[in-house]
Amino acid sequence: MNDPKPIGLTERQWKVVGTTPLRPDGVDKVTGRAQFGADMHLPNMLIGLVLRSPHAHARIKSIDTSKAQALPGVKAVITSADLCDLPSEFVPAGEMMVNYRDMTRNVMAREKALYEGHAVAAVAAINEAVAAQALTLIDVQYEVLPHVLDVDEAMKPDAPLLHDDMITIGVEPKPKPSNVAKRVEFALGDIAAGFAQADVIVEREFLTRPVHQGYIEPHACVASFSEDGHAELWCTTQGQFIVRSFCAKLLGMELSKLRVTPSEIGGGFGGKTVVYLEPLALALSRKACKPVKMVMSRTEVFRATGPTSGARMRVKIGATRAGRITAGEALLKYQAGAFQGSPVQPGCMCAFAPYDLENVKVVGLDIVCNRPKVAAYRAPGGPIAEFAVESVIDELAKQLKLDPVEFRLKNAAKEGTRAAYGPKFGPIGLVQTLEAARAHPHYRAPLKPNQGRGVASGFWFNVGGDTCATLNLSEDGTVSLVAGTPDIGGSRASLAMMASEELGIAYEKIRPMIGDTSALGFNFLTGGSRVTFSSGMAVVEAARDMVRQLRARAAKIWEVPVDEVTWEEGVARATVGGVPKSLTLADIAKTAGKTGGPIVGSAAINAQGAGPSLATHVVDVEVDVETGKVTVLRYTAIQDAGKAVHPAYVEGQMQGGAVQGIGWALNEEYIYDDKGRLENPGFLDYRVPVCSDVPMIDTVIVEVPNPRHPYGVRGVGETPIVPPMAAIANAVANAIGIRFTELPMSPPRVLEAIDAKQAAQSKAAA
Amino acid sequence: MNDPKPIGLTERQWKVVGTTPLRPDGVDKVTGRAQFGADMHLPNMLIGLVLRSPHAHARIKSIDTSKAQALPGVKAVITSADLCDLPSEFVPAGEMMVNYRDMTRNVMAREKALYEGHAVAAVAAINEAVAAQALTLIDVQYEVLPHVLDVDEAMKPDAPLLHDDMITIGVEPKPKPSNVAKRVEFALGDIAAGFAQADVIVEREFLTRPVHQGYIEPHACVASFSEDGHAELWCTTQGQFIVRSFCAKLLGMELSKLRVTPSEIGGGFGGKTVVYLEPLALALSRKACKPVKMVMSRTEVFRATGPTSGARMRVKIGATRAGRITAGEALLKYQAGAFQGSPVQPGCMCAFAPYDLENVKVVGLDIVCNRPKVAAYRAPGGPIAEFAVESVIDELAKQLKLDPVEFRLKNAAKEGTRAAYGPKFGPIGLVQTLEAARAHPHYRAPLKPNQGRGVASGFWFNVGGDTCATLNLSEDGTVSLVAGTPDIGGSRASLAMMASEELGIAYEKIRPMIGDTSALGFNFLTGGSRVTFSSGMAVVEAARDMVRQLRARAAKIWEVPVDEVTWEEGVARATVGGVPKSLTLADIAKTAGKTGGPIVGSAAINAQGAGPSLATHVVDVEVDVETGKVTVLRYTAIQDAGKAVHPAYVEGQMQGGAVQGIGWALNEEYIYDDKGRLENPGFLDYRVPVCSDVPMIDTVIVEVPNPRHPYGVRGVGETPIVPPMAAIANAVANAIGIRFTELPMSPPRVLEAIDAKQAAQSKAAA
Repeated sequence: MNDPKPIGLTERQWKVVGTTPLRPDGVDKVTGRAQFGADMHLPNMLIGLVLRSPHAHARIKSIDTSKAQALPGVKAVITSADLCDLPSEFVPAGEMMVNYRDMTRNVMAREKALYEGHAVAAVAAINEAVAAQALTLIDVQYEVLPHVLDVDEAMKPDAPLLHDDMITIGVEPKPKPSNVAKRVEFALGDIAAGFAQADVIVEREFLTRPVHQGYIEPHACVASFSEDGHAELWCTTQGQFIVRSFCAKLLGMELSKLRVTPSEIGGGFGGKTVVYLEPLALALSRKACKPVKMVMSRTEVFRATGPTSGARMRVKIGATRAGRITAGEALLKYQAGAFQGSPVQPGCMCAFAPYDLENVKVVGLDIVCNRPKVAAYRAPGGPIAEFAVESVIDELAKQLKLDPVEFRLKNAAKEGTRAAYGPKFGPIGLVQTLEAARAHPHYRAPLKPNQGRGVASGFWFNVGGDTCATLNLSEDGTVSLVAGTPDIGGSRASLAMMASEELGIAYEKIRPMIGDTSALGFNFLTGGSRVTFSSGMAVVEAARDMVRQLRARAAKIWEVPVDEVTWEEGVARATVGGVPKSLTLADIAKTAGKTGGPIVGSAAINAQGAGPSLATHVVDVEVDVETGKVTVLRYTAIQDAGKAVHPAYVEGQMQGGAVQGIGWALNEEYIYDDKGRLENPGFLDYRVPVCSDVPMIDTVIVEVPNPRHPYGVRGVGETPIVPPMAAIANAVANAIGIRFTELPMSPPRVLEAIDAKQAAQSKAAA
Repeated sequence: MNDPKPIGLTERQWKVVGTTPLRPDGVDKVTGRAQFGADMHLPNMLIGLVLRSPHAHARIKSIDTSKAQALPGVKAVITSADLCDLPSEFVPAGEMMVNYRDMTRNVMAREKALYEGHAVAAVAAINEAVAAQALTLIDVQYEVLPHVLDVDEAMKPDAPLLHDDMITIGVEPKPKPSNVAKRVEFALGDIAAGFAQADVIVEREFLTRPVHQGYIEPHACVASFSEDGHAELWCTTQGQFIVRSFCAKLLGMELSKLRVTPSEIGGGFGGKTVVYLEPLALALSRKACKPVKMVMSRTEVFRATGPTSGARMRVKIGATRAGRITAGEALLKYQAGAFQGSPVQPGCMCAFAPYDLENVKVVGLDIVCNRPKVAAYRAPGGPIAEFAVESVIDELAKQLKLDPVEFRLKNAAKEGTRAAYGPKFGPIGLVQTLEAARAHPHYRAPLKPNQGRGVASGFWFNVGGDTCATLNLSEDGTVSLVAGTPDIGGSRASLAMMASEELGIAYEKIRPMIGDTSALGFNFLTGGSRVTFSSGMAVVEAARDMVRQLRARAAKIWEVPVDEVTWEEGVARATVGGVPKSLTLADIAKTAGKTGGPIVGSAAINAQGAGPSLATHVVDVEVDVETGKVTVLRYTAIQDAGKAVHPAYVEGQMQGGAVQGIGWALNEEYIYDDKGRLENPGFLDYRVPVCSDVPMIDTVIVEVPNPRHPYGVRGVGETPIVPPMAAIANAVANAIGIRFTELPMSPPRVLEAIDAKQAAQSKAAA
């Protein structure tokens, strides 16, 4: 099923892979023709709105929807009673493990509202005004409960409990309910012995705040449920098949009764791997017997959709004078939000992954609190952990008087290194990115006062998983390529390029599309940086399936054994009765009906062998000591892509990740009042980087081919958000001599630290 | 590719095939949720309208669109200059041969307007009112030419020529331009010798008028053309792939750049196998850079879309006293409309096909005239020819004093009969339908004065062709079935039933859908009664492909050779280490990711071996001699379905065909004024049967399995429109002793004949 023949870079020169053709969806996206989640329209469509909890933590005593239901123009009102309740157990959905008890409660509060903005009811009405009026007529009786937002607060013995029945074995001396949902531990060697060998040990505590994925397009969908129990759903998502799984479960449907069509997606970054409105729209449509459209406001996106975790961390690393790390230890406490499931596990796995260590111990705690349940965000968990580890690494290098790149090179993980989380790495490219950083002019450029340079490395696993692809050969020799993974970062282009390379026809002859859930077998979602790797592998396999058929058709036409027919650069060739014959792909396509029927290449695989991608970022900052503002002056992102199928889009991923990291490092944070209500749910007050905040992000693509992929692809989308926070913190430390262990390094916080340092210096001088 | 193993009826009892579950699209269609051609909506959509020729025949001297273009709100105006001109040659499109020179001219008049209603220009504007106003501002200068509507008139030496360069070899003594587009001839044996052996010869001339397919849903589409040259088209059609072929050619596009999505279809009957608005909407959208919607009015449907041919025919049949036909001869002259391509060839092939004759000659002429180009209509050409032949057969039986069923049985074609058009029949069911008619209580029921009973048989080929199907197994063991042939008569049900039978899971577990042109390889259209046969064959092959994979996965799980795994009724079984093991389809689906990836069964075939379907209809009529109104009292349609996968939908086809035949026989006709302008372009004046016009149509399904299909399917949709006109004419003759050789037998025409007969009788008595 899944045994693509590796093609080494030296074995063959590629014609298309490695070039930078235009993306097939580009024009539609810049002209406004592309249809995003909110662009779908159906006749007789209703508008759905959600009533949300004003309380961070409250028992729902009763919900009276009668007045809302009686309002003319209201066609349906739903509460949690309209969704299935499901047992608390983790079941697989593709590569994920999902707890449907929690999911149904997150989508619509059941016994309790667990965060401000938690959905408690929803209405569908003939228009938005009527729906909004109906929301005001729903009478919810709450018993307001004390709330908790911080992980340390949530772990106190007297903390308000979000889930009375949540008992986590291994956390307490004896099992009792707590807000700690899970404890994970990864260890290698002997920590105590390691630290004993160390000449220098640095130990620091860190605090990061939740940040939102910040996709420009809010969640939006249209659902149409038929009286006979089947339904159609259009939505913006990173995974139509996962949405189908989730919604079918919450609505009590069979999977094949629900067709999910993904719209174009205006950003996801992990935040569109979950469902919010979709099950509600389906339940409203089922009740109203009409199509229902739902679109979130930005406020709703901030209040009720997943950011990634805020965290408290302690990291301790020891090294010898020679610069060899002897031990690393970390405790990571991640906010889960209202329901278990923070990315603390991958955070723990990433933490020390860039280094070849003998003694490591990482403990992670997943802690619920009265915030929106976190969702995946680009390398979920990784950036948080690496911010801490890479900050300590930097401090250690300084104490050892070693160049930070040199120090990392002395300890860098490479092929054969055993990671603390288990596996031995195959070929990986960290050393190459570090060497590229050291060799880059950026690394030697002069700096002025209050300017500093920081460097940090980052790791991300990348995943594979269930994937299908189909190539339909048209009668004129052009090809429709159908993939099942929504195109977020230009994957239509990279998939068409690999098909073009395999089939030997021009890139422009291949029209890539994203299929709905009826068009293909199951596809795991666009996430884990898996698309160019997994859908690429499926496309390559489908193309090779097509080439086999093309050769067979040529053999049939020439009446020769198929083994005698070769395929090269889009042409079948054989020697027939001493005469060399050839047929192009277009020739064979034209007569396909007569030689056996249409020609379709297809593949359904579980893609294995995704290769980790490692990066090193170099950043220069200047700190305005009057205002505390940190300006990013220069940024160079260096990353191992395995093979960059479309280098411009790989660079785009690297640049995008770096920019999001800059926002995380310098400005983005959630501000809550004392009632647990979010005070900055909008892009004016929650400050993501804008163009003027960032310099041109320079990129260097390193290519250490992944031997498990036919074109050496690793996956590149997530790693670039891992190093920036540490790199910037390291640069700030070099600029003004202050080590920040708390994010964001926003002007007030930086100014406060500068003032405190000056006050301390004055005091010392006095 | 295409070698389904026949399953004899006696070999196996089927659980699902032969039952009558509800159609999956039924609820959506009765609740109004189903989306038909005019239901698609896109943001910023324009409305397109067509300017049509007021003249039946006119040279277009000039078209000035400048004023229309200048009207505020008008976004694009097109003429024939915006479509490709193409050479006059017949090229294949699936199983059809297509002349794109003619198609581009039919879609938009170029040098001449050839019928009233012929499109000459089109506009797209912000709304319908502006578009309508813009049409009035287009200045077309015409040189009006003499026109011709009738085939005999069109063949006169001085007839107006529609196409100056149309020279048909074999029609004139020496080649010169004429309105005769084609001459076909099929012959067997020696006609002269045959007639010499005859004891009785009947020879009659016939006249039929064009009738429209009368689909309730008018042509409608939405096109969205992107600036980068790719386009999306939604339309009501019988064949999304054919529409893609046609439009791509007329727009100069590559096939894979155009995605065509078929809407639900509100009737087609052959009339939606062609394009009218679709290329115009695409051309307008290309020019306007916005989506364009176009919907025909009923008037436009009548004036500008294809009816089937009107015809003049001469049929001569001779037989011995013993009732054995010795020779049959026919001359069929069919109206092609403005461009060549009447169904005279299949008409010729059908004419004597129900009979086992030694001496036959059929000549057909395809004659252009100033009417809309004919389109396929249910068994194209067959009903016209059989009206003539079956009328003469009936008269001959009467002269021979033989029961008409008995006479047909003496001459019926059967397995091994060589048809005049070439092939030897395999197993066919005419004899069985005749015997069923004779045995039916209807055939012996008493009649009153002015009532008469008629019987007629009919033949249709049925076709196969390029077909694809995919079965996607969902994680819960339910299945998405994707077919590429629009569902007109319940094929979603019949396809899901065959998949259910093969996979051994419940019918309700399979969700059938119709894919767009990107979802599958090429599919020939829904036509030729091919869908249950061809898409059924593809579905069966796809299901068997899936079963092979299911067995392989079970073998992998059990670690046994795949040959040791059996599959029966949805369960894989093997004996593993002496222990019997079993896994259901759902079990295997659940773990598919771990055993190799998603499971997809697919097939891409050129379906061969469609079996002809034959029918015998029995009808009782009563003639009101005061008004001339013919009332159908009782109707029994008997037909060989091969195997009725879903008997209720087979009966629906038989009933629908009979009802359309009743309309054709009694009321439907086009009325033109002396300028060649249609006077009755609407359902008030063009009278299709309504409920009160027809009795319950009784049906008898005969099953003579088609050995070339895994379930014995033949295809049933077209044959039932073949016998009605002759059966009714025969019944009328038996009721009032008047033989009608002209259609429709409408009240004025019947009354006139009654009056003439009475006048003749009075004269004779005087």
